[in-house]
Amino acid sequence: MSDAILFVLSAPSGCGKTTILRKVMAGLPGLVFSVSHTTRQPRPGEENGRDYHFVGREEFLSMREATPSGFLEWAEVHNNLYGTGRAEVERQLRAGRDIILDIDVQGALQVQEAAAPVMIFIAPPSLAELETRLRRRGTEGEETIRLRLDNARQELRFTDRYDYLIINDRLEEAVDGLRSIIIAERCRRRRSPAGLPVSAAF
Amino acid sequence: MSDAILFVLSAPSGCGKTTILRKVMAGLPGLVFSVSHTTRQPRPGEENGRDYHFVGREEFLSMREATPSGFLEWAEVHNNLYGTGRAEVERQLRAGRDIILDIDVQGALQVQEAAAPVMIFIAPPSLAELETRLRRRGTEGEETIRLRLDNARQELRFTDRYDYLIINDRLEEAVDGLRSIIIAERCRRRRSPAGLPVSAAF
Repeated sequence: MSDAILFVLSAPSGCGKTTILRKVMAGLPGLVFSVSHTTRQPRPGEENGRDYHFVGREEFLSMREATPSGFLEWAEVHNNLYGTGRAEVERQLRAGRDIILDIDVQGALQVQEAAAPVMIFIAPPSLAELETRLRRRGTEGEETIRLRLDNARQELRFTDRYDYLIINDRLEEAVDGLRSIIIAERCRRRRSPAGLPVSAAF
Repeated sequence: MSDAILFVLSAPSGCGKTTILRKVMAGLPGLVFSVSHTTRQPRPGEENGRDYHFVGREEFLSMREATPSGFLEWAEVHNNLYGTGRAEVERQLRAGRDIILDIDVQGALQVQEAAAPVMIFIAPPSLAELETRLRRRGTEGEETIRLRLDNARQELRFTDRYDYLIINDRLEEAVDGLRSIIIAERCRRRRSPAGLPVSAAF
């Protein structure tokens, strides 16, 4: 059996998750990013298989209803379906590649039921600081900012369902935190006789 | 209650433990090294309280027989007693400092019974490679090298009692591994509501 690890990463909007993940993945070989399935139309510049697997609604529903479900988690947002394909995750793990899913708390809890992921949460130093950051971006109206802060408050109630909590106070430290968790989990997994790459040598 | 972490580090002789630990501690604030007690005489250059707490045999034995024992672990080697003082470890943890104990497998298993440490093992890539390294040092006779290899083989049978296994194949990667484990454990500990430094802010 492969020794590869399934990571789930969640963070409220505005916590810097995308930036942190991009920096960590650039410096860490053997870690791949899961590409989700969606029924929504591709936007200009989006590529099938790189940004999303773009599928029809019928195909999505038939995957979803399979036993076991073709999705580790799924959600419907604005009449579009989104999901994490089980087959893709299992294929990467079998190939010995660690895989990381970037999903919200509801999706993360579904994956936790379906698989045995390492759960990582990125939080802001405080809600006040998150509000400051969202306003500083200046890309969203007052209503959207309120909505994001409400969502953040809801999501932060679930941090105890996660294995690790990273506070994104200083970006470089948060990047170091995520990178360290992935390296440490590799050392943790490896400790079992089955995972010990050198067991034959002793 | 303090949120600080007790780490236990073990490695067979010749695995580079001292070098790795020195490099990690130089770059990681908030981590202190535990100073052991011993009944042996100080060697030239050794300083009381820095290298060891040098104590008389009677004082050592009375600490050891206290209830609970004044030592988290102890051992007798060549008629000298060595031990890790419980009070010192507890004082550092209460002050919020993570503390790391550098002890052999027998001592580590004693600490595991007495406290709830994070257990880390550093192993060579193989016994053959360890033998090469011991011979390359050129400081020990054939008999000592045989003894060290036998000890290593014994100690390596206990890696499954540890939480993490670091293979010291390339030094820089092993240093990165130990550093990452310490940072990741801080993110792990922090996830509980009690440990969340920002809980009041949400």
